[in-house]
Amino acid sequence: MELNRAFGVVLREERKKVAISQEELAYLSNLDRTYISLLERGKRNSTLKVLFGLCNALNISPNYFIKEMEKQINSDQY
Amino acid sequence: MELNRAFGVVLREERKKVAISQEELAYLSNLDRTYISLLERGKRNSTLKVLFGLCNALNISPNYFIKEMEKQINSDQY
Repeated sequence: MELNRAFGVVLREERKKVAISQEELAYLSNLDRTYISLLERGKRNSTLKVLFGLCNALNISPNYFIKEMEKQINSDQY
Repeated sequence: MELNRAFGVVLREERKKVAISQEELAYLSNLDRTYISLLERGKRNSTLKVLFGLCNALNISPNYFIKEMEKQINSDQY
C-alpha cells in the first residue's frame, strides 16, 4: 500500500479505537477538520510534527503508529 | 529536546553508523545534499515520505528511527 494511504488507514483506525469524531480529533490536535479528512483519505503527505501531534491527541506513541503503517505498506491489500 | 532537532540528531547518528557522507546519503535517498544538512541541523520539519526514503537508504526501519527520536525528545540533554 502507498505511504499516504497507509497513514490514512492507520489514522482512521486509531481514531475509531478511541471513538472520537474527526472534529474532536481536529480540536485535540489543533488541526482543521478538513485536514484530518484529507489525511485519512491519503491525500496529504504528513509532516513529523503533525504525526507527533496526532499521536499525542490519540494517546499513542509515534513509533507504534509508524509500525502500524509499515504493516499496511507491506500488506497485499489495496 | 525539540522534535526537528531530535530528527537531526538521529539522522546524523544513523548516517555515521553506516559511515556515509551527506552527499552519499543525498544520492541514495534522492534528496539534495543541502536538504540533508538542513535536516541534520534541525532546520526542517520532515515529511513521512522523506523519513521513509531516508530509512530505506540507511537500511533501517522507520519505526526504529522514530523510537530513537522519542528517546532524544524525552532526554534532558540539549
